[in-house]
Amino acid sequence: MKETAKNLNRMAKFGISEGISEMILTTKNASDSNKTANAAPFGITWKNNRMFLHLFKGSTTYENLMREDYFAANMTDDAVLYAKSTFYDLEEEAFDIAAAIEDEENGEEQKTISVPVLKNADRFVLFKCVSRLEAADSVVIDIEPVDFFIFNSEKEGFIFNRGFHSVVEACIHLTRYELTKDPIYIDYIRHHQRIIQKCGRKRDKEGFLIVKKKLMELEIADHFE
Amino acid sequence: MKETAKNLNRMAKFGISEGISEMILTTKNASDSNKTANAAPFGITWKNNRMFLHLFKGSTTYENLMREDYFAANMTDDAVLYAKSTFYDLEEEAFDIAAAIEDEENGEEQKTISVPVLKNADRFVLFKCVSRLEAADSVVIDIEPVDFFIFNSEKEGFIFNRGFHSVVEACIHLTRYELTKDPIYIDYIRHHQRIIQKCGRKRDKEGFLIVKKKLMELEIADHFE
Repeated sequence: MKETAKNLNRMAKFGISEGISEMILTTKNASDSNKTANAAPFGITWKNNRMFLHLFKGSTTYENLMREDYFAANMTDDAVLYAKSTFYDLEEEAFDIAAAIEDEENGEEQKTISVPVLKNADRFVLFKCVSRLEAADSVVIDIEPVDFFIFNSEKEGFIFNRGFHSVVEACIHLTRYELTKDPIYIDYIRHHQRIIQKCGRKRDKEGFLIVKKKLMELEIADHFE
Repeated sequence: MKETAKNLNRMAKFGISEGISEMILTTKNASDSNKTANAAPFGITWKNNRMFLHLFKGSTTYENLMREDYFAANMTDDAVLYAKSTFYDLEEEAFDIAAAIEDEENGEEQKTISVPVLKNADRFVLFKCVSRLEAADSVVIDIEPVDFFIFNSEKEGFIFNRGFHSVVEACIHLTRYELTKDPIYIDYIRHHQRIIQKCGRKRDKEGFLIVKKKLMELEIADHFE
């Protein structure tokens, strides 16, 4: 994976960190589709120096990435774009085309790749699928970054990691629990703990250890794993 | 509030948006405290062109801001810093001092203000308390930005709005509900709806309308307000 180390260092700036980062993936539709491009939110997993997608069969993103090698991971803090692309097709006008030049394996030739991206994304990363491991109902696709684009430099550095958010939510709920003793807050904390274990970065997991320490002091830690 | 319009335009870059933005507030402790500074997470509310804190009696931040006019709102995506400052005192080494020069009301003189900040914050805004409205158990303090500092420009633009986060969570839970029909996901969506109404930006509330549209299509919208 040539030059990947250099590229990996740039990832944080583009909203992708270790753990699972929530992005909107844009892919080229098959030519018989009545829309040229598709957008849908997915998590990009980055664990143990490996970056991959885990896609379940049945989604358009799955269909497209079994056929196409390139896609874009778009970053936005626009909740409308996020919700629309989860449940509905975006209109054609929502897309733009990004092009990048990639060196061929032999190092002598170059090829131009073009990928649909979201016109209103703040920034995006073009990715290449490097291998696919199929299971009965899903596929794990190893990916590597090819190129980086910024539309809105004001928003550089914005990350979306559900684990980080969940640490903040757990802190807020434990503070409320201390005030009210309402056990619903313990349920919320348990819910966010699962998200932290699944999606969080190292620092997020360490952050939750402090929540657990506080839970122990309050003598309610035995509700937790 | 002179120059505030100009300052307000810079807020987004420093992690403060309309709705409620989660920040770590740092304040100077009274001289009889055994720590010189205090750090604790609080939401900064920005609604209808008004920016304020709503602090409940009993917290150190409340005590300090009833006495001192200046504080800093620190932005970080470090979950450990967030959790520690929620439940425990930070060590003295966690703090730095930031200084700013402010024009006096008469426009002729200037004064230097100094405020504790978090050494490991990515960026922070120095605020001034401009008025306080006390109630039985809390105070609402109107605030305005005085100066802006960046420690880590890689992280510019990172916002922390619980409403945005909750739209993404609601989308994820509704997708899971569609797959599993497990009603727990409807409870989670209802929980996040409350956070969106309370903390969200305009776009976050619009984003949740799309979730509601989908809920209507699935004929489960009558569980929601």
